[in-house]
Amino acid sequence: MPDPTRDATTITGQTRLVAVLGDPVAQVRAPALLNRLFAARGVDIVVIPAHVRPDDLGTVVRGLQATANVVGLLVTVPHKVNVLRYADVRSAAAELAGGANALRRLDDGTWHADNFDGAGFVAGLVEAGHRPEGRHVVLVGAGGAGAAIAPALLGAGVDRLTLSDVDDTRVKEVAERLSPHWPGRIFTGTGLESADIVVNATPLGMGPDDPLPFDPAESRPGALVADIVMKPRETRLLREAAGLGRPVLPGEPMLRNQMDLYLGYFAPGA
Amino acid sequence: MPDPTRDATTITGQTRLVAVLGDPVAQVRAPALLNRLFAARGVDIVVIPAHVRPDDLGTVVRGLQATANVVGLLVTVPHKVNVLRYADVRSAAAELAGGANALRRLDDGTWHADNFDGAGFVAGLVEAGHRPEGRHVVLVGAGGAGAAIAPALLGAGVDRLTLSDVDDTRVKEVAERLSPHWPGRIFTGTGLESADIVVNATPLGMGPDDPLPFDPAESRPGALVADIVMKPRETRLLREAAGLGRPVLPGEPMLRNQMDLYLGYFAPGA
Repeated sequence: MPDPTRDATTITGQTRLVAVLGDPVAQVRAPALLNRLFAARGVDIVVIPAHVRPDDLGTVVRGLQATANVVGLLVTVPHKVNVLRYADVRSAAAELAGGANALRRLDDGTWHADNFDGAGFVAGLVEAGHRPEGRHVVLVGAGGAGAAIAPALLGAGVDRLTLSDVDDTRVKEVAERLSPHWPGRIFTGTGLESADIVVNATPLGMGPDDPLPFDPAESRPGALVADIVMKPRETRLLREAAGLGRPVLPGEPMLRNQMDLYLGYFAPGA
Repeated sequence: MPDPTRDATTITGQTRLVAVLGDPVAQVRAPALLNRLFAARGVDIVVIPAHVRPDDLGTVVRGLQATANVVGLLVTVPHKVNVLRYADVRSAAAELAGGANALRRLDDGTWHADNFDGAGFVAGLVEAGHRPEGRHVVLVGAGGAGAAIAPALLGAGVDRLTLSDVDDTRVKEVAERLSPHWPGRIFTGTGLESADIVVNATPLGMGPDDPLPFDPAESRPGALVADIVMKPRETRLLREAAGLGRPVLPGEPMLRNQMDLYLGYFAPGA
């Protein structure tokens, strides 16, 4: 595919908008990645960052929803849970994750919330040749990202999902929300030694001095070690896992696959 | 000057925003014109359109003001008067015009309202070699644009300003607001035959079947006939005036000069 560029001087009065809400927002990559995709498909939508402090979320979301050419929102930390209040309808993925990372205006003017973190992760996993069906996955981190990835893995056919987090309350909350849908397949604890796939869904690894989220040496030979951290591309976890001969999966495919999902969400048929 | 372009894939999480509020907004040219200027000066601000219906103005403005990376607003029909409610401080130009076409966030977090319609018109007039000092100007149209142009002309040294509008109330309102500042220099009526400069500040001429705002044949030979209508560039008024041998001034210089003023307003020192 050529690398098309979009000339912002082509932003006109007719251009539609998607705002990315975050605090901070300076680090978000969606504007650069998604604007390129929209331009390539000839979709006259521009993605812009919106720096929104927690106390201002309602004011900003109501304002964007009242702006007729805003077609949708992307939502990142710390707003994924609270933004659900401003949706009229929620997808199963958003319900099960307990948070949304995308909202869009439906044809009838109501707002739909969805969550593509889990679908993006699973698409990246499958793309790299790691099929989830029948596997045992240990998911380390039951915060926002983990809570979104867990139901996506179960929905994709994972046989056993073990949830692990330093915060027991989080684990319990996610397990209780998902168990009615996948009874007998959700476990808590560690269980690294029997996992086919171990996923870091914590932010550990973004900072150069972060401790490891888990010790990859405890995983069995042949187990896939996946990380959702995108920066750096090769975290210390992945470097150590690769050093032990484990196959690894970085965070980038999850992000890239989400961009394709967002494209379909905001510009169906493009 | 080269014609720089801004690649929208360079919109990042750090990009600041200026929203253009209007209803409709599809026709606004500020995004295309101003994004080019910002790009040329290396200013990481992007101008986006916001389609805002009258009832939603407060909701949208409050939302934009609560968005930390929004540095300012541009305001067009029908919001120029009502948007003043959301400013903490108003320039003399905005006060005298009774409306604003630009707002910006000051360093202390408060919002400043200004109006560059009049300054843009006068800059375009002077640029074309028509000095306003000591002249008699007839201004046809005392709506939002006329109300902004009137004080700018008086401030630039016009000796006599005659206000004319089919709506007497408008004329009276503008005259009463300006008279204390320029006593004895504001007149109402027509007075076309003695004018040095006649300005169309009504929207008449945008539509192909619009009547003339005034008959240029009533102006004296040598009088400048100016139009603020930008599309078409040559209105029927200007065509007929030119046919009579009158010098003419189209609406484009007013728009172009405003863009330079906006640049200085939103990105001081750029």
